[in-house]
Amino acid sequence: MIAGVVGATGYAGAELVRLLSGHGKIDRLVLSSVSFEGGHIEDVYPNFLGRISMSLGKAEDVIAAAGVVFSALPHGVGEPYAHTCFEKGIPFIDLSADFRFGNDEAAFSAWYGKPYTYPKLRDHTVYGLPELNRNRIKELASSGKVIIGNPGCYPTGASLGAFPALAKGLPAGGTTIVIDSISGVSGGGREPSRSFHFPECADAVSPYKVGSHRHTPEIARNFAAMSGNENSPAIIFTPHLAPMNRGILSTIYIPLSAQWRAASTETAIRPPSNEIEQQTAAIRALYTDFYRNEPFVRVLPEGVTAATNRVRQSNYCDISVHLDHSGSTLIVCTAIDNMVKGAAGQAIQNMNIIFDYEERTGLEHIPALF
Amino acid sequence: MIAGVVGATGYAGAELVRLLSGHGKIDRLVLSSVSFEGGHIEDVYPNFLGRISMSLGKAEDVIAAAGVVFSALPHGVGEPYAHTCFEKGIPFIDLSADFRFGNDEAAFSAWYGKPYTYPKLRDHTVYGLPELNRNRIKELASSGKVIIGNPGCYPTGASLGAFPALAKGLPAGGTTIVIDSISGVSGGGREPSRSFHFPECADAVSPYKVGSHRHTPEIARNFAAMSGNENSPAIIFTPHLAPMNRGILSTIYIPLSAQWRAASTETAIRPPSNEIEQQTAAIRALYTDFYRNEPFVRVLPEGVTAATNRVRQSNYCDISVHLDHSGSTLIVCTAIDNMVKGAAGQAIQNMNIIFDYEERTGLEHIPALF
Amino acid sequence: MIAGVVGATGYAGAELVRLLSGHGKIDRLVLSSVSFEGGHIEDVYPNFLGRISMSLGKAEDVIAAAGVVFSALPHGVGEPYAHTCFEKGIPFIDLSADFRFGNDEAAFSAWYGKPYTYPKLRDHTVYGLPELNRNRIKELASSGKVIIGNPGCYPTGASLGAFPALAKGLPAGGTTIVIDSISGVSGGGREPSRSFHFPECADAVSPYKVGSHRHTPEIARNFAAMSGNENSPAIIFTPHLAPMNRGILSTIYIPLSAQWRAASTETAIRPPSNEIEQQTAAIRALYTDFYRNEPFVRVLPEGVTAATNRVRQSNYCDISVHLDHSGSTLIVCTAIDNMVKGAAGQAIQNMNIIFDYEERTGLEHIPALF
Amino acid sequence: MIAGVVGATGYAGAELVRLLSGHGKIDRLVLSSVSFEGGHIEDVYPNFLGRISMSLGKAEDVIAAAGVVFSALPHGVGEPYAHTCFEKGIPFIDLSADFRFGNDEAAFSAWYGKPYTYPKLRDHTVYGLPELNRNRIKELASSGKVIIGNPGCYPTGASLGAFPALAKGLPAGGTTIVIDSISGVSGGGREPSRSFHFPECADAVSPYKVGSHRHTPEIARNFAAMSGNENSPAIIFTPHLAPMNRGILSTIYIPLSAQWRAASTETAIRPPSNEIEQQTAAIRALYTDFYRNEPFVRVLPEGVTAATNRVRQSNYCDISVHLDHSGSTLIVCTAIDNMVKGAAGQAIQNMNIIFDYEERTGLEHIPALF
Repeated sequence: MIAGVVGATGYAGAELVRLLSGHGKIDRLVLSSVSFEGGHIEDVYPNFLGRISMSLGKAEDVIAAAGVVFSALPHGVGEPYAHTCFEKGIPFIDLSADFRFGNDEAAFSAWYGKPYTYPKLRDHTVYGLPELNRNRIKELASSGKVIIGNPGCYPTGASLGAFPALAKGLPAGGTTIVIDSISGVSGGGREPSRSFHFPECADAVSPYKVGSHRHTPEIARNFAAMSGNENSPAIIFTPHLAPMNRGILSTIYIPLSAQWRAASTETAIRPPSNEIEQQTAAIRALYTDFYRNEPFVRVLPEGVTAATNRVRQSNYCDISVHLDHSGSTLIVCTAIDNMVKGAAGQAIQNMNIIFDYEERTGLEHIPALF
Repeated sequence: MIAGVVGATGYAGAELVRLLSGHGKIDRLVLSSVSFEGGHIEDVYPNFLGRISMSLGKAEDVIAAAGVVFSALPHGVGEPYAHTCFEKGIPFIDLSADFRFGNDEAAFSAWYGKPYTYPKLRDHTVYGLPELNRNRIKELASSGKVIIGNPGCYPTGASLGAFPALAKGLPAGGTTIVIDSISGVSGGGREPSRSFHFPECADAVSPYKVGSHRHTPEIARNFAAMSGNENSPAIIFTPHLAPMNRGILSTIYIPLSAQWRAASTETAIRPPSNEIEQQTAAIRALYTDFYRNEPFVRVLPEGVTAATNRVRQSNYCDISVHLDHSGSTLIVCTAIDNMVKGAAGQAIQNMNIIFDYEERTGLEHIPALF
Repeated sequence: MIAGVVGATGYAGAELVRLLSGHGKIDRLVLSSVSFEGGHIEDVYPNFLGRISMSLGKAEDVIAAAGVVFSALPHGVGEPYAHTCFEKGIPFIDLSADFRFGNDEAAFSAWYGKPYTYPKLRDHTVYGLPELNRNRIKELASSGKVIIGNPGCYPTGASLGAFPALAKGLPAGGTTIVIDSISGVSGGGREPSRSFHFPECADAVSPYKVGSHRHTPEIARNFAAMSGNENSPAIIFTPHLAPMNRGILSTIYIPLSAQWRAASTETAIRPPSNEIEQQTAAIRALYTDFYRNEPFVRVLPEGVTAATNRVRQSNYCDISVHLDHSGSTLIVCTAIDNMVKGAAGQAIQNMNIIFDYEERTGLEHIPALF
Repeated sequence: MIAGVVGATGYAGAELVRLLSGHGKIDRLVLSSVSFEGGHIEDVYPNFLGRISMSLGKAEDVIAAAGVVFSALPHGVGEPYAHTCFEKGIPFIDLSADFRFGNDEAAFSAWYGKPYTYPKLRDHTVYGLPELNRNRIKELASSGKVIIGNPGCYPTGASLGAFPALAKGLPAGGTTIVIDSISGVSGGGREPSRSFHFPECADAVSPYKVGSHRHTPEIARNFAAMSGNENSPAIIFTPHLAPMNRGILSTIYIPLSAQWRAASTETAIRPPSNEIEQQTAAIRALYTDFYRNEPFVRVLPEGVTAATNRVRQSNYCDISVHLDHSGSTLIVCTAIDNMVKGAAGQAIQNMNIIFDYEERTGLEHIPALF
């Protein structure tokens, strides 16, 4: 199999190149880059020297040669390549937002400022979160025409943390779910800017795009898909930037319906009671069961809390389950590597599903603590 | 004036020593340390060499010499010193939790595992958050007998962010307020441990003590004090650790009563409308007005978001005001330096109030961006 | 093949476990730990959850089961296990300093404060730097009795940077070579201490053990082995600590003999001349040729400088070759990951050589830039 | 006194503004900025909000109003302003390299690529390292015409570390002194670029401009000035970048003449002997004596090593004195804050000397450990 990467020199593209180079089913890569066309990937990323030596061509050449195409282009420019691949029957896995909103063009254009170029492609598009849409991915793949809208980094961690609760009806009616996320700086991409200039973000934490981040509607769509539209909770999403390279830690606050709360006779604020610990264990068990067949989701045992360094450089999403001190709100913490499960790794997971490879293929990395 | 610092070699104690050394009203310091008794502070902190050279004695000697005593001892061991100072009429400013809970000994002992030794001292105790209790601090000071329970770091940032909303009745009835905070590692103190070992917390973010952090009841007490007990909202508080030395960033989610929401006809999730921006500006104006006379609270203008590096090494609490995309929840972000406004600086601010010094004295540091 | 790791819960031990788990020739691992005996490795390192689940036993049990034993014990305690393995004909790869000094027990005991317990083992011992001793490793392995003294982290980067110059006679006679190294904090091991407490080493750089680091004699031995004793240069070695998790950057200053200097007519200090650039290219070519068959040494092309993030999480040693502004001193910069080529990876490389596996087996990791 | 800052919005300019705002002799500031002309400094640096509110005008306006002018412009553009100030008799303190090379225009133009515009100004110029040129600064100041070439950051730390050895004749004849320095990222300035993009320099260390950094000739000039030209040693200077905001750590290797070496009968490499420790103490005493009247140089006592976090946010240069294991090379480590003693603080120290203010005025900051 020849895999193509369009836009190979951005961070997500380069991560795809690195991970695909160790993928047992991929015989060869073909790469394109607008910024470095005619150059070599190892000149842009000298960490690849001696291991990955490849010239950077045009997107058209990639599509002509490849049996599967990954696109790591910015939002709004890859549709023509998707269309060509679609016509040729080549699976197209897009890491931009272009294919994440299905037929809701209004939402996409409201947040990304562009209309769809080929709206009809959305009939053959699937949002590539395997834990939500694995069957639909397989179905489209077997039809021979499949375009994957690979999920955003924040929506991946937020959705996986909330899915079991949503699927099992834990939230109280009319609930608003708060998602508070903290990301490493690689999420901002390769292009230097003031916000990601070392002295302005090192040794510091800050929120950004409060109330206006465009991953908000994507998260809401996922929540609705899992809970059913009529039960779909409202959400609030706030991202923060922390001085680390990789990782997203999301803390998700889900108010519980009466039947799921820990019974409590205490009105004062006190350390967690036995009742709270038992109910936490019950919900943890529910989470564990929900994900029992998922290769990349780890529901952590009691006493272990999700942390970005425990999933570093891996495709795992770690989930820890907690209750607030009053037993009335479920607090779920999730950790992913934003470049792997949050981008390139998930894209490869989608490829594995499309081609019926064992889903872990090429994604066997054991997290390094540091 | 001679100031004494009991427990001068922990991080908060050393920060007190450093800041008091530049305080124009303090003529001399006397210090004690259990761990380094008989040594010198500049041997423990060589960064002080040539500037602060002082021997470390016993707490008793400090109390004998000082006109004001700061205690940076661990929770539960300083009460006898407070008692002695009280008897002698020396103001006692305690950075531990021992005097933060007033007469609610049950809450203190439930969370800190110890009963009060001198319960009656609480009649002369005030929770030293000047923005809440400045008058009470002055009142006790003028009585000649005052013990300050200096606030915890998280409660300071959380409370200052919520106070205007609570005081003005913005929250919807029966509200739960989520406080999601991110702290630098100095908050964990000077003692080495696995959690704060560089390779286990660098380049990583993690939550801790989810649903069980003992600053929770302290925050709730402050909220109740500002909103009135009958309107006191429920709270949920989650702290996170980020790889930075100083700073706490708190994001506070306050569901708004109907009259404070931004009018919206939009049901879909869309970027912030003009209505939302106008309502944000209105609430920002309310916040600005609320703090107009406060020397250390800065309500940030539109377009500037609270960030820990903008208050670095200063006594400021920065506050930015936002609405969620739907206009129904107020999102307040606050940033403090946990060692200054979150500990030693606030203690000095309390001293300034007690002795009727200009409140900014010794706390004039302009934040360095990096 | 069953591989055993004695001392599996220190950082080097855990890195061995992680890397060996992905090694195609290793069927099973057996682990021991004094600190956590009876526990499981994934409880100590929750990043292993779901991937590496293994109980921690006694060293004796490890040796009884394994076909190769890695020891990641502290200096001075592993000799009895080495002896047992030796008697049984099981290769023993020791990551401590115990077997790095061969028959020079005086040097070992002067720097490590202990005599040898089984001095005669040194007749079957080889210093496991493959680029120096690959043949000797194979020779001992074929004898059926081999003990590897796996190199220290600093000596690995220092030696590989100097070897081509030493082998080809570039240094001037009577030269002193300065080696100035900067290490990440994981090199200090898993045990918390003041020096590695986050707030005391984050956002800061410091030298340590100036003139007295015990890797100094190890580096000197390697230099002498490569240059021949009579030409052996004097060395000076200074380590520094930098706020990063992994990596060692070494800058090595080698005064050149007259024939290797760049011809220069300039006496003033000026930017590098063409002559200097040409001579740099010539020496770079010599380095490239020297390492042409080495799987884990990359001599970087012109314009690329050694940097720790270009070898992150890999077994590579990157080398960049420079001249000073006057053309009289060769400056070689090397970068390694201290936990991989500087410890666990090199140990596995040694195992691969012993068992005649392809030398890259299990060490194929492509460096991630971040 | 009104102080002017030309180029106030770069990092060095903003640090000048911050420090001058707390300087007791400065009544008012006037600022200029090409990039933000017409704006306000607190909009560019919101950390100044509520404390420093000043409009940004033209350089001409600054010069018209100020009694002393600091220039934080890039190299090669400030000469006309220097000339105007000179004509008007206003002291001009230039943080660029334009006035560091005195009458050696050839050196300046070789390294900075520009000729002098007003060569004759150099007759009234002094290199503003007070520990070298305090008297000359005073002399020029009393003449009413003074232009200060404020030293580069690296040359400051390198020179102060070598001066006592050079002045007292410690180096062996024909010596080459190696200076190996490690800098924080703020040294690269405010402009975003690939090299200082967080994900490309966080958690990593790298050398840069090896053999070709333009601080090399500046260091050499200082060494020659202190040692006398005939004894001037050769130097080699290598800078490294470390993931911290502020600080420069320099390690300086000075081969000792026979009379200064520690007597040693040991030929093998062994831990430091008593003789070495005694000789180290002797040289430390010499250093201490040399700097006994300097307000900003701290020669550290035995057992304390220079570290960037011990001078953080202060104008100190810390110096620790060591010998290599053989007793033949002096190793001096120095630490400065590159933005303070390495730039803005030193500029203010120069102003204090010019105006005969107490030299510590406005520079009393006690270093914070973190």
